[in-house]
Amino acid sequence: MRNLALTISYDGTSFAGFQRQPNQRTVQGVLEEALSRLEATQSNNTPTVTGSGRTDAGVHALAQVVNFVSVKDLPDSAYLRGLNSLLPRDLVVKDVVEVPLDFNARKSAKAKEYHYWLKVTPPLSPLGPSALEVRGSDEVDLKAMNGALKHFLGTHDFAGFRSSGSSIVNTVRTIYDAGSFAVGSYVVFAFLADGFLYNMVRIIMGTLLDVGMRKIPVVRIPEIIKSCDRLSAGKTIGPEGLYLYRVYYGDVLGLYSIKKETEPKCHLDIHDYFT
Amino acid sequence: MRNLALTISYDGTSFAGFQRQPNQRTVQGVLEEALSRLEATQSNNTPTVTGSGRTDAGVHALAQVVNFVSVKDLPDSAYLRGLNSLLPRDLVVKDVVEVPLDFNARKSAKAKEYHYWLKVTPPLSPLGPSALEVRGSDEVDLKAMNGALKHFLGTHDFAGFRSSGSSIVNTVRTIYDAGSFAVGSYVVFAFLADGFLYNMVRIIMGTLLDVGMRKIPVVRIPEIIKSCDRLSAGKTIGPEGLYLYRVYYGDVLGLYSIKKETEPKCHLDIHDYFT
Repeated sequence: MRNLALTISYDGTSFAGFQRQPNQRTVQGVLEEALSRLEATQSNNTPTVTGSGRTDAGVHALAQVVNFVSVKDLPDSAYLRGLNSLLPRDLVVKDVVEVPLDFNARKSAKAKEYHYWLKVTPPLSPLGPSALEVRGSDEVDLKAMNGALKHFLGTHDFAGFRSSGSSIVNTVRTIYDAGSFAVGSYVVFAFLADGFLYNMVRIIMGTLLDVGMRKIPVVRIPEIIKSCDRLSAGKTIGPEGLYLYRVYYGDVLGLYSIKKETEPKCHLDIHDYFT
Repeated sequence: MRNLALTISYDGTSFAGFQRQPNQRTVQGVLEEALSRLEATQSNNTPTVTGSGRTDAGVHALAQVVNFVSVKDLPDSAYLRGLNSLLPRDLVVKDVVEVPLDFNARKSAKAKEYHYWLKVTPPLSPLGPSALEVRGSDEVDLKAMNGALKHFLGTHDFAGFRSSGSSIVNTVRTIYDAGSFAVGSYVVFAFLADGFLYNMVRIIMGTLLDVGMRKIPVVRIPEIIKSCDRLSAGKTIGPEGLYLYRVYYGDVLGLYSIKKETEPKCHLDIHDYFT
Protein backbone atom coordinates (compact mmCIF):
# COMPACT_ATOMS: atom_id res chain seq x y z
CA MET A 1 0.00 0.00 0.00
CA ARG A 2 1.52 3.25 -1.13
CA ASN A 3 0.30 6.85 -1.00
CA LEU A 4 0.83 8.46 -4.40
CA ALA A 5 0.56 12.13 -5.29
CA LEU A 6 -0.27 13.01 -8.89
CA THR A 7 0.34 16.43 -10.38
CA ILE A 8 -2.38 16.90 -12.97
CA SER A 9 -3.18 19.55 -15.55
CA TYR A 10 -6.52 20.17 -17.21
CA ASP A 11 -8.35 22.44 -19.55
CA GLY A 12 -11.45 23.09 -17.47
CA THR A 13 -13.64 24.14 -20.40
CA SER A 14 -15.45 20.82 -20.77
CA PHE A 15 -15.47 19.77 -17.11
CA ALA A 16 -18.27 20.47 -14.63
CA GLY A 17 -15.54 21.29 -12.11
CA PHE A 18 -13.20 19.10 -10.10
CA GLN A 19 -15.53 17.40 -7.66
CA ARG A 20 -17.27 14.19 -8.66
CA GLN A 21 -21.00 14.60 -9.25
CA PRO A 22 -23.50 12.09 -10.59
CA ASN A 23 -24.05 12.28 -14.36
CA GLN A 24 -21.51 15.06 -14.79
CA ARG A 25 -18.11 15.00 -16.47
CA THR A 26 -15.81 16.04 -13.65
CA VAL A 27 -12.03 15.93 -13.22
CA GLN A 28 -12.28 13.69 -10.18
CA GLY A 29 -14.79 11.39 -11.85
CA VAL A 30 -12.77 10.95 -15.05
CA LEU A 31 -9.53 10.46 -13.11
CA GLU A 32 -11.02 7.91 -10.71
CA GLU A 33 -12.50 5.97 -13.58
CA ALA A 34 -9.11 5.80 -15.33
CA LEU A 35 -7.47 4.76 -12.08
CA SER A 36 -10.07 2.10 -11.54
CA ARG A 37 -9.40 0.69 -15.01
CA LEU A 38 -5.64 0.82 -14.50
CA GLU A 39 -5.78 -0.98 -11.18
CA ALA A 40 -8.58 -3.22 -12.43
CA THR A 41 -10.33 -2.88 -9.12
CA GLN A 42 -13.71 -4.36 -8.37
CA SER A 43 -16.59 -1.95 -8.91
CA ASN A 44 -17.28 -1.89 -5.18
CA ASN A 45 -13.74 -0.76 -4.53
CA THR A 46 -13.32 2.31 -6.76
CA PRO A 47 -10.21 4.29 -5.78
CA THR A 48 -10.87 7.72 -4.33
CA VAL A 49 -8.59 10.63 -5.11
CA THR A 50 -8.29 13.60 -2.80
CA GLY A 51 -7.63 16.92 -4.52
CA SER A 52 -5.87 19.92 -3.00
CA GLY A 53 -9.19 21.67 -3.45
CA ARG A 54 -12.12 21.89 -5.79
CA THR A 55 -11.84 23.97 -8.90
CA ASP A 56 -15.11 25.17 -10.36
CA ALA A 57 -16.66 24.37 -13.72
CA GLY A 58 -14.55 25.96 -16.46
CA VAL A 59 -11.51 26.63 -14.26
CA HIS A 60 -8.18 25.31 -15.56
CA ALA A 61 -5.22 23.82 -13.71
CA LEU A 62 -1.54 23.69 -14.59
CA ALA A 63 -0.49 21.72 -11.52
CA GLN A 64 -3.37 20.53 -9.38
CA VAL A 65 -2.27 17.93 -6.84
CA VAL A 66 -4.28 14.85 -5.86
CA ASN A 67 -3.37 11.82 -3.81
CA PHE A 68 -4.70 8.30 -3.53
CA VAL A 69 -3.74 5.02 -1.95
CA SER A 70 -2.59 2.62 -4.63
CA VAL A 71 -3.98 -0.89 -4.50
CA LYS A 72 -1.68 -2.44 -7.07
CA ASP A 73 2.03 -2.27 -6.59
CA LEU A 74 2.75 -0.73 -9.99
CA PRO A 75 5.89 1.34 -10.57
CA ASP A 76 5.34 5.13 -10.62
CA SER A 77 6.07 5.29 -14.35
CA ALA A 78 3.25 2.82 -15.01
CA TYR A 79 0.82 5.22 -13.35
CA LEU A 80 2.14 8.10 -15.43
CA ARG A 81 2.04 6.31 -18.77
CA GLY A 82 -0.91 4.07 -17.97
CA LEU A 83 -3.19 6.83 -16.75
CA ASN A 84 -2.29 9.14 -19.63
CA SER A 85 -3.14 6.41 -22.12
CA LEU A 86 -6.58 6.11 -20.50
CA LEU A 87 -7.28 9.82 -19.95
CA PRO A 88 -8.83 12.23 -22.48
CA ARG A 89 -6.76 15.00 -24.07
CA ASP A 90 -8.00 17.71 -21.71
CA LEU A 91 -6.78 15.94 -18.54
CA VAL A 92 -3.18 14.90 -18.16
CA VAL A 93 -1.03 13.43 -15.40
CA LYS A 94 2.25 15.34 -15.39
CA ASP A 95 4.02 13.67 -12.50
CA VAL A 96 3.70 10.87 -9.97
CA VAL A 97 5.55 10.79 -6.65
CA GLU A 98 5.27 8.56 -3.64
CA VAL A 99 4.44 10.56 -0.52
CA PRO A 100 4.28 9.69 3.18
CA LEU A 101 1.15 7.78 4.20
CA ASP A 102 -0.09 10.75 6.23
CA PHE A 103 0.05 13.09 3.23
CA ASN A 104 -3.35 14.47 2.24
CA ALA A 105 -3.44 16.68 -0.85
CA ARG A 106 -6.02 18.98 0.75
CA LYS A 107 -5.03 19.02 4.41
CA SER A 108 -1.28 19.07 3.78
CA ALA A 109 -1.47 22.01 1.35
CA LYS A 110 0.26 25.11 2.71
CA ALA A 111 -0.59 27.57 -0.04
CA LYS A 112 -2.02 27.88 -3.51
CA GLU A 113 -1.34 30.16 -6.39
CA TYR A 114 -3.96 31.15 -8.95
CA HIS A 115 -3.54 33.16 -12.14
CA TYR A 116 -6.33 35.10 -13.79
CA TRP A 117 -5.81 35.94 -17.49
CA LEU A 118 -7.44 39.05 -18.92
CA LYS A 119 -7.30 40.13 -22.52
CA VAL A 120 -7.46 43.88 -22.25
CA THR A 121 -6.36 44.87 -25.74
CA PRO A 122 -8.76 43.66 -28.42
CA PRO A 123 -8.91 41.60 -30.52
CA LEU A 124 -8.72 38.28 -28.71
CA SER A 125 -6.00 36.06 -30.12
CA PRO A 126 -7.28 32.88 -31.80
CA LEU A 127 -4.11 31.10 -30.68
CA GLY A 128 -3.67 32.49 -27.18
CA PRO A 129 -4.73 30.90 -23.91
CA SER A 130 -8.26 30.90 -22.57
CA ALA A 131 -8.83 34.32 -21.00
CA LEU A 132 -11.56 36.74 -20.07
CA GLU A 133 -11.97 39.28 -22.82
CA VAL A 134 -12.71 42.67 -21.32
CA ARG A 135 -15.00 44.61 -23.60
CA GLY A 136 -14.59 48.34 -23.90
CA SER A 137 -11.15 47.70 -22.51
CA ASP A 138 -9.58 50.78 -24.06
CA GLU A 139 -10.98 52.26 -20.89
CA VAL A 140 -9.59 49.83 -18.31
CA ASP A 141 -7.31 51.56 -15.82
CA LEU A 142 -4.72 48.91 -15.04
CA LYS A 143 -2.80 51.23 -12.73
CA ALA A 144 -5.89 51.67 -10.56
CA MET A 145 -6.44 47.89 -10.57
CA ASN A 146 -2.89 47.34 -9.34
CA GLY A 147 -3.41 49.98 -6.68
CA ALA A 148 -6.57 48.23 -5.51
CA LEU A 149 -4.82 44.86 -5.55
CA LYS A 150 -2.41 45.96 -2.81
CA HIS A 151 -5.27 46.36 -0.35
CA PHE A 152 -6.03 42.65 -0.57
CA LEU A 153 -2.57 41.65 0.65
CA GLY A 154 -2.25 40.20 4.13
CA THR A 155 -4.74 38.61 6.50
CA HIS A 156 -8.40 39.59 6.14
CA ASP A 157 -11.83 38.18 6.73
CA PHE A 158 -12.82 37.58 3.10
CA ALA A 159 -16.47 36.78 3.92
CA GLY A 160 -17.57 39.38 1.36
CA PHE A 161 -15.55 37.61 -1.33
CA ARG A 162 -17.13 34.21 -1.46
CA SER A 163 -20.18 32.88 -3.17
CA SER A 164 -22.91 31.30 -1.11
CA GLY A 165 -23.08 27.53 -1.12
CA SER A 166 -19.97 26.91 0.93
CA SER A 167 -20.16 25.46 4.42
CA ILE A 168 -16.77 26.87 5.46
CA VAL A 169 -17.07 28.73 8.79
CA ASN A 170 -13.67 30.39 9.05
CA THR A 171 -13.45 32.99 6.28
CA VAL A 172 -10.12 34.49 7.30
CA ARG A 173 -7.39 33.97 4.75
CA THR A 174 -3.90 35.34 4.22
CA ILE A 175 -2.84 36.55 0.79
CA TYR A 176 0.95 36.32 0.89
CA ASP A 177 1.51 38.00 -2.42
CA ALA A 178 -0.43 39.32 -5.39
CA GLY A 179 0.67 41.08 -8.52
CA SER A 180 0.09 41.49 -12.21
CA PHE A 181 2.19 40.48 -15.17
CA ALA A 182 2.01 41.68 -18.76
CA VAL A 183 2.23 38.75 -21.19
CA GLY A 184 1.97 39.85 -24.80
CA SER A 185 -1.32 41.69 -25.01
CA TYR A 186 -2.71 39.88 -21.96
CA VAL A 187 -2.54 40.91 -18.31
CA VAL A 188 -2.31 38.16 -15.74
CA PHE A 189 -3.22 38.73 -12.10
CA ALA A 190 -1.56 36.32 -9.68
CA PHE A 191 -2.65 35.48 -6.14
CA LEU A 192 -0.72 33.41 -3.63
CA ALA A 193 -2.58 32.63 -0.39
CA ASP A 194 -2.85 30.03 2.33
CA GLY A 195 -6.25 29.19 0.91
CA PHE A 196 -9.11 30.60 -1.11
CA LEU A 197 -12.84 30.72 -0.39
CA TYR A 198 -15.44 29.61 -2.94
CA ASN A 199 -15.09 31.91 -6.00
CA MET A 200 -12.76 34.22 -4.05
CA VAL A 201 -10.36 34.95 -6.92
CA ARG A 202 -13.19 35.53 -9.37
CA ILE A 203 -14.94 37.96 -7.00
CA ILE A 204 -11.72 39.83 -6.23
CA MET A 205 -11.09 40.05 -9.97
CA GLY A 206 -14.65 41.28 -10.58
CA THR A 207 -14.05 43.96 -7.97
CA LEU A 208 -10.71 44.92 -9.50
CA LEU A 209 -12.39 45.21 -12.90
CA ASP A 210 -14.99 47.55 -11.38
CA VAL A 211 -12.04 49.64 -10.21
CA GLY A 212 -10.48 49.44 -13.67
CA MET A 213 -13.79 50.56 -15.21
CA ARG A 214 -14.02 53.40 -12.67
CA LYS A 215 -17.17 52.06 -11.07
CA ILE A 216 -15.43 51.71 -7.70
CA PRO A 217 -12.70 54.14 -6.55
CA VAL A 218 -9.50 52.54 -5.21
CA VAL A 219 -9.95 54.23 -1.81
CA ARG A 220 -13.18 52.33 -1.20
CA ILE A 221 -11.49 48.90 -1.37
CA PRO A 222 -10.46 48.71 2.32
CA GLU A 223 -14.02 49.42 3.50
CA ILE A 224 -15.45 46.93 1.00
CA ILE A 225 -13.13 44.25 2.41
CA LYS A 226 -13.98 45.22 6.02
CA SER A 227 -17.72 45.23 5.34
CA CYS A 228 -17.69 41.45 4.77
CA ASP A 229 -20.68 42.17 2.55
CA ARG A 230 -20.88 40.17 -0.66
CA LEU A 231 -23.06 42.88 -2.22
CA SER A 232 -20.41 45.57 -1.78
CA ALA A 233 -17.89 43.61 -3.82
CA GLY A 234 -17.90 43.20 -7.60
CA LYS A 235 -19.53 40.39 -9.47
CA THR A 236 -18.13 36.89 -9.90
CA ILE A 237 -16.45 37.01 -13.30
CA GLY A 238 -16.21 33.98 -15.60
CA PRO A 239 -14.04 30.92 -15.02
CA GLU A 240 -12.40 30.98 -18.45
CA GLY A 241 -9.44 33.12 -17.36
CA LEU A 242 -8.71 31.27 -14.12
CA TYR A 243 -5.85 28.80 -13.72
CA LEU A 244 -4.75 26.94 -10.61
CA TYR A 245 -1.05 27.49 -11.14
CA ARG A 246 0.63 25.70 -8.24
CA VAL A 247 -0.15 24.03 -4.92
CA TYR A 248 2.56 24.38 -2.30
CA TYR A 249 3.33 21.89 0.45
CA GLY A 250 5.94 21.64 3.18
CA ASP A 251 8.99 19.58 2.44
CA VAL A 252 7.46 16.86 0.28
CA LEU A 253 9.84 15.56 -2.31
CA GLY A 254 8.67 16.22 -5.84
CA LEU A 255 6.04 18.84 -4.98
CA TYR A 256 6.33 22.60 -4.82
CA SER A 257 7.24 23.67 -1.31
CA ILE A 258 6.92 26.99 0.42
CA LYS A 259 8.62 28.58 3.39
CA LYS A 260 6.54 31.26 5.06
CA GLU A 261 9.62 32.73 6.71
CA THR A 262 11.07 33.65 3.33
CA GLU A 263 8.15 35.79 2.10
CA PRO A 264 6.36 33.69 -0.49
CA LYS A 265 6.12 35.41 -3.86
CA CYS A 266 3.89 34.94 -6.88
CA HIS A 267 5.50 33.50 -9.98
CA LEU A 268 4.65 33.56 -13.59
CA ASP A 269 7.08 31.43 -15.47
CA ILE A 270 5.62 31.49 -18.95
CA HIS A 271 7.29 28.17 -19.75
CA ASP A 272 4.93 26.53 -17.27
CA TYR A 273 2.17 27.25 -19.76
CA PHE A 274 4.17 25.27 -22.33
CA THR A 275 4.85 22.16 -20.28
CA MET B 1 -9.82 53.76 -53.58
CA ARG B 2 -7.22 52.61 -51.10
CA ASN B 3 -5.03 49.54 -50.88
CA LEU B 4 -5.22 48.10 -47.37
CA ALA B 5 -3.02 45.40 -45.84
CA LEU B 6 -4.48 43.34 -43.02
CA THR B 7 -2.38 41.33 -40.62
CA ILE B 8 -4.50 38.35 -39.66
CA SER B 9 -4.14 35.48 -37.22
CA TYR B 10 -5.98 32.19 -37.30
CA ASP B 11 -6.25 28.84 -35.67
CA GLY B 12 -6.15 26.63 -38.74
CA THR B 13 -7.76 23.60 -37.09
CA SER B 14 -11.24 24.20 -38.50
CA PHE B 15 -10.27 25.75 -41.84
CA ALA B 16 -9.80 23.86 -45.10
CA GLY B 17 -6.74 26.03 -45.68
CA PHE B 18 -6.33 29.63 -46.77
CA GLN B 19 -7.48 29.53 -50.38
CA ARG B 20 -11.15 29.95 -51.19
CA GLN B 21 -12.82 26.75 -52.39
CA PRO B 22 -16.47 26.08 -53.11
CA ASN B 23 -18.42 24.62 -50.16
CA GLN B 24 -15.40 24.71 -47.87
CA ARG B 25 -14.73 26.85 -44.84
CA THR B 26 -11.52 28.66 -45.83
CA VAL B 27 -9.70 31.65 -44.38
CA GLN B 28 -10.03 33.60 -47.62
CA GLY B 29 -13.69 32.72 -48.01
CA VAL B 30 -14.65 33.69 -44.44
CA LEU B 31 -12.62 36.90 -44.63
CA GLU B 32 -14.04 37.97 -47.99
CA GLU B 33 -17.56 37.31 -46.79
CA ALA B 34 -17.01 39.53 -43.73
CA LEU B 35 -15.46 42.22 -45.91
CA SER B 36 -18.37 42.04 -48.29
CA ARG B 37 -20.80 42.53 -45.41
CA LEU B 38 -18.77 45.39 -43.96
CA GLU B 39 -18.57 47.22 -47.25
CA ALA B 40 -22.13 46.19 -48.12
CA THR B 41 -21.03 45.50 -51.66
CA GLN B 42 -23.30 44.06 -54.30
CA SER B 43 -23.05 40.31 -54.67
CA ASN B 44 -21.54 40.71 -58.12
CA ASN B 45 -18.77 42.82 -56.65
CA THR B 46 -17.34 40.68 -53.84
CA PRO B 47 -13.99 42.04 -52.66
CA THR B 48 -11.02 39.79 -53.32
CA VAL B 49 -8.19 39.52 -50.82
CA THR B 50 -4.69 38.52 -51.87
CA GLY B 51 -2.75 36.52 -49.28
CA SER B 52 1.04 36.39 -48.94
CA GLY B 53 0.63 32.72 -49.71
CA ARG B 54 -1.66 29.79 -49.15
CA THR B 55 -1.49 27.95 -45.90
CA ASP B 56 -2.79 24.40 -45.95
CA ALA B 57 -5.71 22.88 -44.08
CA GLY B 58 -4.89 22.82 -40.38
CA VAL B 59 -1.94 25.22 -40.57
CA HIS B 60 -2.06 28.21 -38.21
CA ALA B 61 -0.95 31.79 -38.69
CA LEU B 62 0.17 34.41 -36.20
CA ALA B 63 0.65 37.15 -38.74
CA GLN B 64 -0.48 36.28 -42.25
CA VAL B 65 -0.70 39.35 -44.48
CA VAL B 66 -3.44 39.97 -47.04
CA ASN B 67 -4.31 43.04 -49.06
CA PHE B 68 -7.42 44.26 -50.83
CA VAL B 69 -8.67 47.39 -52.50
CA SER B 70 -11.25 49.06 -50.29
CA VAL B 71 -14.44 50.19 -51.95
CA LYS B 72 -15.83 52.24 -49.09
CA ASP B 73 -13.79 55.04 -47.63
CA LEU B 74 -13.97 53.76 -44.05
CA PRO B 75 -11.26 54.69 -41.53
CA ASP B 76 -8.70 51.94 -40.80
CA SER B 77 -10.07 51.45 -37.29
CA ALA B 78 -13.51 50.69 -38.74
CA TYR B 79 -11.99 47.82 -40.70
CA LEU B 80 -10.24 46.52 -37.59
CA ARG B 81 -13.27 46.69 -35.31
CA GLY B 82 -15.88 46.06 -37.96
CA LEU B 83 -14.25 42.97 -39.41
CA ASN B 84 -13.51 41.50 -35.99
CA SER B 85 -17.14 41.92 -34.99
CA LEU B 86 -18.13 39.93 -38.10
CA LEU B 87 -15.41 37.27 -37.96
CA PRO B 88 -15.51 33.99 -35.99
CA ARG B 89 -13.28 33.44 -32.96
CA ASP B 90 -10.67 31.46 -34.88
CA LEU B 91 -9.90 34.25 -37.36
CA VAL B 92 -8.87 37.69 -36.19
CA VAL B 93 -7.66 40.88 -37.83
CA LYS B 94 -4.76 42.18 -35.78
CA ASP B 95 -3.82 45.25 -37.73
CA VAL B 96 -4.84 47.36 -40.71
CA VAL B 97 -2.45 49.63 -42.61
CA GLU B 98 -2.77 51.54 -45.84
CA VAL B 99 -0.13 50.49 -48.34
CA PRO B 100 0.95 51.83 -51.74
CA LEU B 101 -1.39 50.92 -54.59
CA ASP B 102 1.25 48.69 -56.16
CA PHE B 103 1.61 46.59 -52.98
CA ASN B 104 0.62 42.96 -53.48
CA ALA B 105 0.75 40.73 -50.37
CA ARG B 106 2.07 37.80 -52.39
CA LYS B 107 4.34 39.44 -54.96
CA SER B 108 5.77 42.04 -52.60
CA ALA B 109 6.70 39.50 -49.91
CA LYS B 110 10.46 39.24 -49.45
CA ALA B 111 10.57 36.39 -46.93
CA LYS B 112 8.47 34.27 -44.64
CA GLU B 113 9.10 32.66 -41.33
CA TYR B 114 7.42 29.44 -40.23
CA HIS B 115 7.57 27.72 -36.85
CA TYR B 116 6.96 24.02 -36.32
CA TRP B 117 6.02 22.97 -32.77
CA LEU B 118 6.93 19.50 -31.59
CA LYS B 119 6.05 18.03 -28.23
CA VAL B 120 8.92 15.68 -27.60
CA THR B 121 8.43 15.01 -23.89
CA PRO B 122 5.14 13.29 -23.12
CA PRO B 123 2.52 13.90 -21.92
CA LEU B 124 0.99 16.53 -24.19
CA SER B 125 -0.13 19.57 -22.24
CA PRO B 126 -3.89 20.12 -22.28
CA LEU B 127 -3.27 23.90 -22.13
CA GLY B 128 -0.30 24.26 -24.46
CA PRO B 129 -0.38 25.26 -28.13
CA SER B 130 -1.31 22.95 -30.96
CA ALA B 131 1.75 20.83 -31.69
CA LEU B 132 2.78 17.53 -33.19
CA GLU B 133 3.16 14.96 -30.46
CA VAL B 134 6.10 12.71 -31.21
CA ARG B 135 5.42 9.23 -29.94
CA GLY B 136 8.26 7.22 -28.53
CA SER B 137 10.02 10.53 -28.22
CA ASP B 138 12.28 9.42 -25.38
CA GLU B 139 14.29 8.26 -28.33
CA VAL B 140 14.34 11.44 -30.42
CA ASP B 141 17.87 12.70 -30.98
CA LEU B 142 17.44 16.48 -31.04
CA LYS B 143 21.13 17.06 -31.45
CA ALA B 144 21.14 15.03 -34.65
CA MET B 145 18.06 16.93 -35.87
CA ASN B 146 19.84 20.22 -35.31
CA GLY B 147 22.90 18.87 -37.13
CA ALA B 148 20.73 17.88 -40.10
CA LEU B 149 18.96 21.25 -40.04
CA LYS B 150 22.20 23.07 -40.89
CA HIS B 151 22.40 21.29 -44.24
CA PHE B 152 19.16 22.96 -45.36
CA LEU B 153 20.59 26.47 -44.96
CA GLY B 154 21.32 28.45 -48.08
CA THR B 155 20.16 28.17 -51.67
CA HIS B 156 19.07 24.74 -52.90
CA ASP B 157 16.74 23.19 -55.40
CA PHE B 158 14.09 21.89 -53.01
CA ALA B 159 12.24 19.87 -55.65
CA GLY B 160 12.44 16.81 -53.40
CA PHE B 161 10.74 18.71 -50.62
CA ARG B 162 7.42 19.59 -52.12
CA SER B 163 4.21 17.68 -52.51
CA SER B 164 2.76 17.13 -55.94
CA GLY B 165 -0.14 19.33 -56.93
CA SER B 166 1.83 22.53 -57.34
CA SER B 167 2.36 24.16 -60.71
CA ILE B 168 5.44 26.10 -59.59
CA VAL B 169 8.33 25.56 -62.03
CA ASN B 170 11.22 27.15 -60.18
CA THR B 171 11.90 25.03 -57.11
CA VAL B 172 15.04 26.87 -55.97
CA ARG B 173 14.62 28.60 -52.64
CA THR B 174 16.98 30.21 -50.14
CA ILE B 175 16.70 29.42 -46.48
CA TYR B 176 18.30 32.42 -44.79
CA ASP B 177 18.19 30.98 -41.31
CA ALA B 178 16.85 27.97 -39.43
CA GLY B 179 17.15 26.94 -35.83
CA SER B 180 15.41 25.33 -32.93
CA PHE B 181 14.15 26.78 -29.68
CA ALA B 182 13.22 25.00 -26.45
CA VAL B 183 9.96 26.36 -25.06
CA GLY B 184 8.91 24.57 -21.88
CA SER B 185 8.70 20.93 -22.86
CA TYR B 186 8.20 21.77 -26.54
CA VAL B 187 10.83 22.18 -29.23
CA VAL B 188 10.12 24.68 -31.97
CA PHE B 189 11.90 24.56 -35.33
CA ALA B 190 12.01 27.89 -37.15
CA PHE B 191 12.61 28.48 -40.86
CA LEU B 192 13.16 31.82 -42.54
CA ALA B 193 13.29 31.73 -46.34
CA ASP B 194 12.55 33.80 -49.42
CA GLY B 195 9.69 31.42 -50.07
CA PHE B 196 8.49 27.89 -49.43
CA LEU B 197 7.25 25.21 -51.80
CA TYR B 198 4.02 23.31 -51.21
CA ASN B 199 4.41 21.39 -47.90
CA MET B 200 8.14 22.19 -47.83
CA VAL B 201 8.36 22.84 -44.08
CA ARG B 202 6.33 19.74 -43.25
CA ILE B 203 8.52 17.53 -45.49
CA ILE B 204 11.75 19.01 -44.10
CA MET B 205 10.39 18.39 -40.60
CA GLY B 206 9.41 14.83 -41.51
CA THR B 207 12.95 14.28 -42.75
CA LEU B 208 14.44 15.82 -39.59
CA LEU B 209 12.25 13.53 -37.48
CA ASP B 210 13.56 10.54 -39.42
CA VAL B 211 17.03 11.74 -38.45
CA GLY B 212 15.90 12.18 -34.84
CA MET B 213 14.50 8.64 -34.88
CA ARG B 214 17.77 7.35 -36.41
CA LYS B 215 16.09 6.22 -39.62
CA ILE B 216 18.26 8.59 -41.68
CA PRO B 217 21.88 9.42 -40.73
CA VAL B 218 22.77 13.12 -40.69
CA VAL B 219 25.47 12.60 -43.32
CA ARG B 220 22.87 11.49 -45.87
CA ILE B 221 20.99 14.83 -45.78
CA PRO B 222 23.11 16.64 -48.42
CA GLU B 223 22.63 13.83 -50.96
CA ILE B 224 18.89 13.67 -50.18
CA ILE B 225 18.61 17.38 -50.91
CA LYS B 226 20.72 17.08 -54.08
CA SER B 227 18.70 14.08 -55.33
CA CYS B 228 15.61 16.30 -55.81
CA ASP B 229 13.71 13.05 -55.22
CA ARG B 230 10.56 13.33 -53.14
CA LEU B 231 10.84 9.66 -52.20
CA SER B 232 14.27 10.10 -50.61
CA ALA B 233 12.97 12.67 -48.16
CA GLY B 234 10.81 11.97 -45.09
CA LYS B 235 7.07 11.98 -45.02
CA THR B 236 4.88 15.08 -44.86
CA ILE B 237 4.08 15.41 -41.18
CA GLY B 238 0.80 16.86 -39.89
CA PRO B 239 -0.23 20.51 -40.09
CA GLU B 240 -1.13 20.85 -36.40
CA GLY B 241 2.33 22.02 -35.34
CA LEU B 242 2.86 24.51 -38.16
CA TYR B 243 2.50 28.27 -37.74
CA LEU B 244 3.11 31.02 -40.28
CA TYR B 245 4.94 33.32 -37.89
CA ARG B 246 5.76 36.40 -39.95
CA VAL B 247 5.77 37.69 -43.51
CA TYR B 248 8.52 40.14 -44.31
CA TYR B 249 8.33 42.95 -46.87
CA GLY B 250 10.64 45.75 -47.93
CA ASP B 251 10.10 49.10 -46.34
CA VAL B 252 6.34 49.08 -45.97
CA LEU B 253 5.17 51.01 -42.96
CA GLY B 254 3.42 48.81 -40.41
CA LEU B 255 4.62 45.47 -41.74
CA TYR B 256 7.67 43.42 -40.83
CA SER B 257 10.58 44.33 -43.05
CA ILE B 258 13.75 42.51 -43.83
CA LYS B 259 17.15 43.53 -45.11
CA LYS B 260 19.03 40.76 -46.85
CA GLU B 261 22.33 42.59 -46.37
CA THR B 262 22.06 42.25 -42.58
CA GLU B 263 21.73 38.44 -42.42
CA PRO B 264 18.08 37.75 -41.66
CA LYS B 265 17.62 35.68 -38.51
CA CYS B 266 14.81 33.52 -37.19
CA HIS B 267 12.95 34.84 -34.17
CA LEU B 268 10.85 33.23 -31.54
CA ASP B 269 9.43 35.89 -29.31
CA ILE B 270 7.12 33.88 -27.11
CA HIS B 271 5.00 36.98 -26.47
CA ASP B 272 3.92 36.84 -30.11
CA TYR B 273 2.02 33.70 -29.19
CA PHE B 274 0.16 35.76 -26.56
CA THR B 275 -0.84 38.67 -28.73
